[in-house]
Parts: sequence; structure tokens; C-alpha cells
Amino acid sequence: MGIGMVGYAFMGLAHSQGWRNARSFFDPALSPELVAIAGRDGAAAAEMARRFDWQHVETDWRALVARPDVEVVDICTPGDTHAEIAIAALDAGKHVLCEKPLANTVDEARRMADAAERARARGVRSMVGFTYRRVPAIAFARQLVQEGRVGEIRHVRAQYLQDWLVDPESPLTWRLEKERAGSGALGDIGAHIIDLTHFVTGERITGVSATMETFVKERPVAGSVKGLSASAQEGGERGQVTVDDAAVFLARLSGGGLGTFEATRFATGRKNSIRLEINGSRGSLAFDFEDMNVLHVHDASVDARESGFTKVVVTEPTHPYVEHWWPAGHGLGYEHGFTHQAADLVDAIARGVDPSPSFADGLAVQEVLAAVESSAANASAWTPIDLPAGTQP
Amino acid sequence: MGIGMVGYAFMGLAHSQGWRNARSFFDPALSPELVAIAGRDGAAAAEMARRFDWQHVETDWRALVARPDVEVVDICTPGDTHAEIAIAALDAGKHVLCEKPLANTVDEARRMADAAERARARGVRSMVGFTYRRVPAIAFARQLVQEGRVGEIRHVRAQYLQDWLVDPESPLTWRLEKERAGSGALGDIGAHIIDLTHFVTGERITGVSATMETFVKERPVAGSVKGLSASAQEGGERGQVTVDDAAVFLARLSGGGLGTFEATRFATGRKNSIRLEINGSRGSLAFDFEDMNVLHVHDASVDARESGFTKVVVTEPTHPYVEHWWPAGHGLGYEHGFTHQAADLVDAIARGVDPSPSFADGLAVQEVLAAVESSAANASAWTPIDLPAGTQP
Amino acid sequence: MGIGMVGYAFMGLAHSQGWRNARSFFDPALSPELVAIAGRDGAAAAEMARRFDWQHVETDWRALVARPDVEVVDICTPGDTHAEIAIAALDAGKHVLCEKPLANTVDEARRMADAAERARARGVRSMVGFTYRRVPAIAFARQLVQEGRVGEIRHVRAQYLQDWLVDPESPLTWRLEKERAGSGALGDIGAHIIDLTHFVTGERITGVSATMETFVKERPVAGSVKGLSASAQEGGERGQVTVDDAAVFLARLSGGGLGTFEATRFATGRKNSIRLEINGSRGSLAFDFEDMNVLHVHDASVDARESGFTKVVVTEPTHPYVEHWWPAGHGLGYEHGFTHQAADLVDAIARGVDPSPSFADGLAVQEVLAAVESSAANASAWTPIDLPAGTQP
Amino acid sequence: MGIGMVGYAFMGLAHSQGWRNARSFFDPALSPELVAIAGRDGAAAAEMARRFDWQHVETDWRALVARPDVEVVDICTPGDTHAEIAIAALDAGKHVLCEKPLANTVDEARRMADAAERARARGVRSMVGFTYRRVPAIAFARQLVQEGRVGEIRHVRAQYLQDWLVDPESPLTWRLEKERAGSGALGDIGAHIIDLTHFVTGERITGVSATMETFVKERPVAGSVKGLSASAQEGGERGQVTVDDAAVFLARLSGGGLGTFEATRFATGRKNSIRLEINGSRGSLAFDFEDMNVLHVHDASVDARESGFTKVVVTEPTHPYVEHWWPAGHGLGYEHGFTHQAADLVDAIARGVDPSPSFADGLAVQEVLAAVESSAANASAWTPIDLPAGTQP
Repeated sequence: MGIGMVGYAFMGLAHSQGWRNARSFFDPALSPELVAIAGRDGAAAAEMARRFDWQHVETDWRALVARPDVEVVDICTPGDTHAEIAIAALDAGKHVLCEKPLANTVDEARRMADAAERARARGVRSMVGFTYRRVPAIAFARQLVQEGRVGEIRHVRAQYLQDWLVDPESPLTWRLEKERAGSGALGDIGAHIIDLTHFVTGERITGVSATMETFVKERPVAGSVKGLSASAQEGGERGQVTVDDAAVFLARLSGGGLGTFEATRFATGRKNSIRLEINGSRGSLAFDFEDMNVLHVHDASVDARESGFTKVVVTEPTHPYVEHWWPAGHGLGYEHGFTHQAADLVDAIARGVDPSPSFADGLAVQEVLAAVESSAANASAWTPIDLPAGTQP
Repeated sequence: MGIGMVGYAFMGLAHSQGWRNARSFFDPALSPELVAIAGRDGAAAAEMARRFDWQHVETDWRALVARPDVEVVDICTPGDTHAEIAIAALDAGKHVLCEKPLANTVDEARRMADAAERARARGVRSMVGFTYRRVPAIAFARQLVQEGRVGEIRHVRAQYLQDWLVDPESPLTWRLEKERAGSGALGDIGAHIIDLTHFVTGERITGVSATMETFVKERPVAGSVKGLSASAQEGGERGQVTVDDAAVFLARLSGGGLGTFEATRFATGRKNSIRLEINGSRGSLAFDFEDMNVLHVHDASVDARESGFTKVVVTEPTHPYVEHWWPAGHGLGYEHGFTHQAADLVDAIARGVDPSPSFADGLAVQEVLAAVESSAANASAWTPIDLPAGTQP
Repeated sequence: MGIGMVGYAFMGLAHSQGWRNARSFFDPALSPELVAIAGRDGAAAAEMARRFDWQHVETDWRALVARPDVEVVDICTPGDTHAEIAIAALDAGKHVLCEKPLANTVDEARRMADAAERARARGVRSMVGFTYRRVPAIAFARQLVQEGRVGEIRHVRAQYLQDWLVDPESPLTWRLEKERAGSGALGDIGAHIIDLTHFVTGERITGVSATMETFVKERPVAGSVKGLSASAQEGGERGQVTVDDAAVFLARLSGGGLGTFEATRFATGRKNSIRLEINGSRGSLAFDFEDMNVLHVHDASVDARESGFTKVVVTEPTHPYVEHWWPAGHGLGYEHGFTHQAADLVDAIARGVDPSPSFADGLAVQEVLAAVESSAANASAWTPIDLPAGTQP
Repeated sequence: MGIGMVGYAFMGLAHSQGWRNARSFFDPALSPELVAIAGRDGAAAAEMARRFDWQHVETDWRALVARPDVEVVDICTPGDTHAEIAIAALDAGKHVLCEKPLANTVDEARRMADAAERARARGVRSMVGFTYRRVPAIAFARQLVQEGRVGEIRHVRAQYLQDWLVDPESPLTWRLEKERAGSGALGDIGAHIIDLTHFVTGERITGVSATMETFVKERPVAGSVKGLSASAQEGGERGQVTVDDAAVFLARLSGGGLGTFEATRFATGRKNSIRLEINGSRGSLAFDFEDMNVLHVHDASVDARESGFTKVVVTEPTHPYVEHWWPAGHGLGYEHGFTHQAADLVDAIARGVDPSPSFADGLAVQEVLAAVESSAANASAWTPIDLPAGTQP
């Protein structure tokens, strides 16, 4: 199964490793071949190709999509390019894996989901790259919910906490410009905890009340700081930060539960802390990506004398994905989710079924992001989100 | 210093222990004497008197207030009686310690704060019983904020999680009736995390957006279940739950930071988990009452290679209150806050200064509670809270 | 039940609180009355009496033992005085509570155990003050072992870690002189983890291999440092440290399991960390006094997919001792063990049964301490410990 | 740089991933090429070759060693074959990476170390595969010790806890036969914590006192259980377990500190828990492989009011190895140590320096293992270990 990847930066690296490891550790029926990589900066793309044995390099993504030996197009570029590439690839009959967020706007996301739906009718598959779904502890959490172990869900508290913008002299990169990034913490990291909530609970967010904030409103222009220490910035140019530093919102789930969400780049001391706690009528689950091989499980049916949160080290062969790796107690890391994603995608293609999360799932996240922005712009007014007809609440 | 206590239940027990230990462990200049206890159920009051050596028992709080040997009136009754007793005691020239919440309504709380202000002019002191302020780790957190160690506060995330109503057959006690309890999780436990936020940050909550929920809307009437197992309730009478099971809200602090708050009796597996995390421009603090002798401290000025959250075991003699107790590493428990409260109150009286938290502080909490209810009733609309003129933001 | 206490320092304070709280919170059939306190320093004893309402003060322990209104003699003095006082009191027909270690030598301990046995025939009770047995999480651990939940015990790893001697300028107090203290870390804190092992496992240590060390062999003489900063010690007198700073030993349990023990005052950063982990054929238990309201419980019969260590917060009314205190989730502190001890002792006296731990249990600990010292002095040679005839292994 | 690997099982898989990732993520000057894999079971070796793109397959390790395109021989076979293969390869002028333990006996290990020393004179390099040294948190711990942050080392407590033999019906594999495995828990996992102690402290173990135990002395013969459930074993053959299930020992370090060590396959509930705590005169370090991206660091020079153990998440670019992987907060897993090992070896070869750990380091571990067995066989008598002349203590 020939893979063609567009992009070569952080996500390109993670995806390259994912494709390669999928073959070596999962040995899927349709074994992924690293056929071609595309990037406008041909030298950078060639360097990635050299390190991971990509067979060909293209400098135009259209050429990559056009290659007959490319059967899967893997999109690792910034969000404002996703729609064009993905729709072209789907229309050309290529299966598509698209990095998250699916798009920068609901409109784009909807057009992509429509294209995916059209392609699906022709047996062409698509998937959006919410890889945290494939951390074994998260996939295990979903299994427990599906088995009824949590019961009716009452509370979700989800946080994605980073701190890389705490320093007010941290420069104004493209991620802090609305035209290019769409939004700030909300779309970049808030999208993950929205999707994780949908995935683990099996429910949908049906409404939100939100507040957003840009704590540091001006920053040194990135170009002017290259290679200079921050203390030398006195005469430096400053520009407006046009995205949010933090977004917090309340939510209602389709099953009636309450959610509290927080996405921020200003949680001093928290590097990449993705926390998800779910309380239900029959039990609770708690996860923190800082300890990613662990799920804390509470079973309310156990007598109070012996009950509590059990620290399950999710490295047993009976846990999702784990049998393909190492013996019990030998933990996995951040990158393994990309291998699981790659393996699941080629497996779905081989079996002729739809992989998950679908573009429709990506659109659902986008609709929540839009509702959050709308509520925040409207004095936190409650903002309902329509579920598509036929959605299982 | 003669103490007269009104009430003899859970809080009466905790306060009795507090007064007694204040003398033994803090040896204050004005040593508290357990003069009289009042309760409508004279036998129950007499039993408490017997166990803790209260010298006299009254069955009418007015008689207790009238006693010349009672100099401090300690109010441990339900919230709907606070205003009448406190105002009468203050007007009678007695110092007053009043359990939280200060009252069931803003109006009552305001009348109490006014009475306290009048009494203050005559050297009569008053204090509201937010005892969690006096957990050493919390008092230490405030010190660190005041010393500038956290810098500008960006985020507060505060949770008070309990699970005692998860069972839908748990009976309909007075705590679940609005007329008597005022509100549910919000006033009972939400009040604590509001006050802790005010205390630790030194800021005020200036606006909220809220959602509240009653997950189980009917419960067995309490009278009918006494001594019966839940499974025998088939023919039992059921009544409406008229208060909230859970309240969640976003908040803005006077310094511009964002807050997320959650108070619930449906967090399965969490018994009394009071969590407070504060992220600022210079550092962060994290506390969980499940590990109450610990404060996690992050200092952003430490090089990233060595930085992280330091687990400070708050049992050193240089930590607040600790020198009066045991050597380092010998932790305190829930009840010690009541001793610190008692010792601080008689110390303030002796020194002729105002103790803290004042009735005005209790009113401030009440105003936030009212704003939360108002926002929740108004589709989560942002609801500002006016600070009193002259308040330090 | 009239209590007479000998001693007024750290342990005198803890015991005073224990006696008083036993009455107030446990309301035992034989209610303890704080009749008399004895101390050679009459002013210090009077001060303790004033704070805790001890009715009488004696300056000679013999006078206290002779008082007809004293029915229980509580010995809180240093170890080298225990034997004389305890034997005199027992022979005078007084029940005795004696602080740990029971004595400074096996010989003394044996004479005390003999006196206890003689007194027992006359209905006079005795108990040694290993209060950590009465931390609810520890008492719960023993229950689980007794219920067979751990199965055959394979491993015990026990540590008592402190760090108060890390500074080489810390002065040479009496605790560092062998003539007075008997031993150093071994007897002071090692005794606790030996007793906890006996208590929780229900087994006995049957042999040891040991090494001991004095890391800092000379220290400033205590008298010469009073009120001076360490940096001013240049001309100060120094004396020999004649006890161990640390003792480590391997052990065999009567059921065949292996133990590793460590007692040290040089574990930098550990203030009072008492750790006990037990692994058996059916499950495991883990405790750390730094988080004293928690027991971690592992049940090997649970399927590996869901198994792990459950963090049981030991504050439920069904946990040992807890129903007398606060609601679930409201933790206890260091001092509560002293209340449990006092309540258990007067309860045993009232019921006419032997309290636990007995002087024989204290002797058993002393025999292990002696074997450790012997092994350490003999190149760590395995040193067996004879169990008394009839001991349940 | 042509790599030839002998073996294709668990370690073969981990090493294949290591070699491949070393090229992709570290881009070393001498880029490793996966030239050939050797295994007696040609089909199994071919399967590994297929998955990881090993170019050639050999069924005789001698043929692999003889290949001119193989420059590094990587030995992943059981311990009883290490000496022959390693010495042949070194004598043939090939660089050698040999899995741990270096050998099954001190004699073999010494001959290997001698061969390595001879080869070294010709510029041929050798390394033993104690990969846990290359967990970033462990490598960071060593850095802190070397920088003097821990000061004089007083205590090491090291544990390697597994539980895969708790079930007495677990079959009698070759790992439980002394002739083939050398020893049990001691050599298999105890070797790791010995080496980690040498590595992190920079000191050597100079003597031990030990006890070993085989808890389950007979087990079902492995052949007879294949494909059968344990409950069907009634008529099955049983054989003697001839190795240790657990080994515990006390140790002395060359700097005078004390060590307590525990290696067991009977720590119920602990899957792969490698714990290392070091207490020194200036600070402490604590590590647990169950949370492998974290090092707990205590600095004794911090004022007691703010001191404690800092949870350093070892994922910053300034931490060892991390800059080659992902952004801060994105943790690594078990397998990454094999990549670090591969990258460090080819880097050392390129720079013409000796890689570490050397065969002499492997011999040092073997000598400790032998001393442990000797002490255990001799009633735990203290058993000194001679350091080689010129060793830095």
C-alpha cells in the first residue's frame, strides 16, 4: 500500500515513524510502503526522505497526489491547506489521512466531510489524525465506558495544559496569527480534549458557554528575534497576538452530563498535560498524559472499605495495541499513537471498512470549536450545537 | 474568654475540639473557656457538654447569648438561623464566630455584615468559619502568592468533589430541600472553593458564567427510609429534590485571570476532594485535600532542566500553625483547622484587631453564589459581580 | 479510670491529647480521668497539667504510682527508666502503658515482660506504645492479611527514613550517646518497622543479617552550641557519636518470606517516611506515612487488564477507628493513634482482656534489635532469633 | 557502518528498532546499516529481516562474523553463548555490542573483558547492553551526581520487582534452569540494578551480605503445558526449579554508603518496577521505571519551608538524548534506550573512543552477582569484592 506524505516538519517526522513501525510491529495485510514525500522546501523533504527511506521526493503536493503508486495521501501540513489537498486527493480516489484539526473553519471542514462521504461511496477511506485516541490507556478507557463500567456519565473534566507562552518575550510566530492558525490554544490543543471526550464517552457535546483570553497582547515579531537573546529586544518591533492564549468552557453532553474544559498555553509548569476525568453513575476514570501508560479506574460497585481508584498500568497484552509491542510493564511513549493510527488505517482499508475518527468526527470537533468562539464573543451565552440527524446521542 | 456555642452536631463536635485544643496547643493570652452550649434538643446538647466539659447547657440560644459569662458566641446551626442569632449576639456585644455559609441569601449576609460593621465600632469582633483557609498547606499557598512567587495569576482551577448522592436511592434529607438548605452542592461545598480562591489569590471573583444540574430529581422521602434497606423502598414515598446536585462555572478574577470551578456530589469515587491549582506568570501551586499536608510548588525561574512541581510536605515548624503541633513529617488532619480558627479568633480579640475571614468576606462569597445561580437561570449569561467600593482588586 | 502519667515532653503531650480525646470521641465504658502527672521538673509538669487539666502534679514517679486514685500508669520517659517504673507499677497493681521501645536491653525487656505476666494473673493489664499500629490504614492492612487477602507472604520491604542528622554540625544530643539512648536509628525508629511487620503480617522475624553505620562520627557537644549559629563553632568542643546513624538488615519471617529493613536518619529529604510494602501469593499492600490516610491494595485475583494498586482512602466508617471521628474523606493526623491507643487500653481493661501490643510483643522487638546489633558486629553473619515456645509462627 | 545481529527474539526486536531509529533520529556520522541477521531458526530470522529490512540472513553466527560487510556484531542470544561469539568477533576485528548479563560466570566475563582489552589496542570497540543507563531520567540522575548535587552518597535503595512467577502453575521454562540461565532473578534483573547503581553513583559495590530464595520449588514441565490450561495439569510432569525466585542483599559502596538491593519475580502487582533512590549529604534522587520519564530531585540546600522532592519531567531538550525526539512533555518509552545505545556506540566508534558500559563494567556486575551467590550460600556472611587495581572508588 503506497503512502504519500505531504509535509516534513514535526508531524511529518511522527508520521514517518508511524508508517514504518506499523509495518514492523503490526505486520498488516496491506503493508505500508513509504513511496513519496512532498514539500515545497525540496531539500528539507529530501532530508526526511533520506532518514526514513521515503523512495521519492516531490515539491508539489499535486504531483504526489497524481502518482499512481501513491494510494494513501497523508496530510501533515498546517490547517489552512488541509481542505484543498484532502478534497483533491479524495476526488482522485486516494485514501486520505489528515492531521488535526481537520480544517480552520467549519465551512472547510464540512466540505471535507462531504468529499469524504462522496469518496466513501467509491470505497475510498478517510481519517483525521486525532492520535491521542490511540494511546492505549485512552482506548482502554473507551472500552470500559462501552462495557457500561462507568454507567451514566455525570461529569467530564478535561484539560490540556501547556506553558510555552508564559514568557511575554516569546516571539510572535504564525501560530499566534489568526489568519494562518485559525485560533490559538482552542484549536491547537482544545480540539484534542473535545475529540477525546467524544471518543471516550461515545457522546457528543451539545452546547457550550465559553470565555477566551489573550493574556499577552503584543509580542516581539518573530523575524526580528531570530538568533537574538530576548534581552536584546529593546528596539525590536512588536506585533499583535490575534489568537487566544487560553480558552475555558462549560459543556453539556448528549447524555445529560456536564463538562468543564480548559485549553491553555499559560499553565506554568505543565508541559503537555492532557487530563481527562469522567464520573459516572457506576464508576470513574482518570487519565493524565504526563503518566500516559496509566489509567485510574474506580468501580462504584466495590464496597467502600476496599474501593478507590485503581492505578492500572496499561501495558498488558490484553490492553489495546499492546500485544504488538513489549512485555507487561514496559511502557510506550508519545510516538506510538502514530503507529497505531497508521496500522488501523491500512487495516480498515484492507477490510473495506471505515476507519475512525472520520472526517465527520473532525467536523464535529470543528463545530464545537466554532460554538466556543461564538459563545465567548457573546458574553458566554449558552450556545447549542446541532447534532447531525441520526446521530446517536 | 468565655465561649458559648449554639449547635451540637457535626460542626459542634469539630468546634468543641477546636476550642479545647486552642488552649492546650496554642496557649493564647485569652484562653478559651467552654462555658455553655445551647441546643433545642437538651439531651443531645448535654451529651456534647459531658464529653467536652462544657460547663452549662441551655435549650434556648437567646439564654446563651444573654449569659454574662459568655463573651464569644459560636454559631454551628444550619444556615437559615445564622442571621438572627449572629445579629442578636453582635448587638448584645458578643464576639461572634459563625459557621459557613454566612447565610442562605445575599440579603441576610448583607444584614449580618452590617451588624458586624456596627459592632466593630464598639470593639466587638466577628469571623466566618471558612476553616479550610487554616489548613497549613493552604495558608502557606497564600504566603507564597503574597510574596510574589506566583506572579500575575492567569488560571485558577478549583474543584470540590464528593460522591455521596451517586446512589439514586439515597434519601431526601433537608440538605436537598431549597427552603431549608438555600442551595445544594453550590452553597455547601462550592462556597469553600470560592472562599479559598479569594483567600489564596488575594483577588476577588468579578463575574461568572454558570450551569447547574440536578441529576436525580426525585428521591425517597427521608422519614420513610429510616432503618430500612433501600431495596425495601418499592412502595415508599418520593419527593422532589429542589437543590442542585452539581454546579460548574467559569469566572474572571479581579487581576484578569480565568477560573474554572466545579462543585458536585456526583464525582463517583471522590469523597472530599478539594483541589486548587493556580498558574501565574512566575510559578504555580497545586493542592488536593486528599493529601492535605502537601503543597505542590512550581517556580518558573528555575532552569527547565531542573524544574517541576516540588512536593512540599507542609509540616515544618516554619510553616503556618505547625510549630504548635508535632515535629516535621508528622501530619495534621481535618480537625486541626478548627483549632487554628479558634486560636486566631481569641488572639485577634486579645490584640484588638479584626479577625479574618470577616463577615464581609462571607458576604463576598454569598454574592458569587447568587451570581452563579443567576447566570445558570439565564442560559449561562455572563454575570458580573460588583466589588464594594474601595476593595483591593 | 484514673490515669497517672510519668513524663511531660513530646510523648507526654501526645499522650495527654490521647487520653482526653479517648473520652470525648470514643466514650469508653471506663472513661479516662487525667488524675496526675509526674516529672522531676515540677514546673514543666505543672505547665503540662495546666494545659490539659491534669488534676495533680507529682515530682517523684513513686508518689504517682502510690496514689490510690491512679489506676493506670502511663510511662513517657526515656527508655533507660522504663523497666524500673513499669515493674514497680505492675507490682503495685496498676495497669501500665509504656512508651516504646519497651527497654534499652533485652534483659530489661524480659524482666518487664515477666512482671507483666505476673501482673496479668492478677488481672492487671499492660501495653507497649507502638502507636503506629493504630493508624487506620495500618490496622486495615492487618485486617486484610488476616482475611487471607494477601495469601502467603513472600516479601516485606520496610523503611523508616528521616534526615535530621544530615547536617554534620547538628549537635551531639543524648540521643546520640549509647549509654543513654541504647542505640541510634535502630532502636528509635527501626523498632517501629519491626513491630509494624509483626503486627501487619501476624508473623515473627526469625533471623537477620545486618549492617550498621555512623556516618558522622564526631559532632559539636550540645551544650556548647546552644544559641549559637553553626558557623560560630570553630573553637567548639566535639564529642564522639556512639550510636548508629543508620541500620539496614535482611530478615526472614516465620512464614518463610524475605524482609528488607532500613532505618536511617540520613535519608535526605525524607522527614518521617515510614514505608511498608508486603507482597503475597494473593495480593500486595503498600503504605507510606507521608500519605497516612491511604493504603494501596493489590488483588492478584483480578484480571490483569483491570488490576493494579487501588488507592484506598482509609476514612470510611467501616475502616478501623474511623467511625468515631469525621465523615469519609476527612483525614486523620499523626496524633490520632494516641487516642486509639488510650481508648483500646481502657476498653481492654473494662472487658478484662489483654490489650495489644503486650510487653511480650515489646520484648520480641527488642530481641530483633539485639540480633541486628549482633549480626552487624559479626560481619553480617546470619543471626537466628528463637521464638518463644508456643508462638504462632 | 554495517551491523550484524545474532538472535531474533525479544532482544533482537528491540535492537532492530534501535539500529533503525539511531539512523533516523540521531543521524550519526557513521550511519548504521542493517546488513545481516543470524539465527539457527532461519525462518524466524528471515521473518525479523523482512519486518526490519535486514539485508541478509545467516543461520550460523560464524558466517555472520566472517562477512566483510559486517563491522559491528550485536549479540542478542542467551547468556551462555555470549563469551564464544563475542571473543570470536573481537578477535576477528569486529566491534561488539553484547546483551546483558555479559556472561553466566565471572570466568567467562573475565575472558571477554580480556578479549575486549586486546581488541581495544587495535581500535576495536565493545559495549555491554545495560540499556536502562540510557533512559533519559537515569542519565540525568548520573549528571546530577557528577555535578555534586547529591554530595557524599549515604544510601542507595534499589529494587527490581516483577511478579510473573507468582502463579505456582507457571511452567518450568529454561529461565528457571541453572545450567542454562546461570541464575534466576539475581542475574536476569538484579544485574540491572547493580549496573544502574555503579552508573548513577559513579562508585562500585565493595561487599555484600545476601539471602536468596526459591519460593516455588517445583513447577509443571514447560513442554507438557503447551497449549493447555493450567487447570488441566493434574497428571502433568513436574520438575525442579534450580534458580532463585528472589535475591535480597545489603551492600557497601566504595564511598562508604550503604545499599539495600532486592530483585524478585514474586512482587505481586509489580510488573517491571525498577526503583532507585539515592540519599546523599547534599540531596537525593528517586526514580521508578513505572513512571520512566520522571526523576524526583531533592536539594538539601533549599530552605526547609520550600524544599521537597521536585518531580522533574525529563523531556526537555536539555535533558540527555531528548533533543533528538519530541517537544517537551511528549514522553519516551521502553524501547528508546535501545536507540540511544545504538547511537552512542556508532558515535564512539566514529570518534575513536571507548563506549560505555564496557566489558569491564559488565565484569564488575558479574563479580557482584558472584559475591551475592557466595554470601547467600555462606549464611549471609559479608563477602568483599576486590576492585581492580587503579579503579576509581
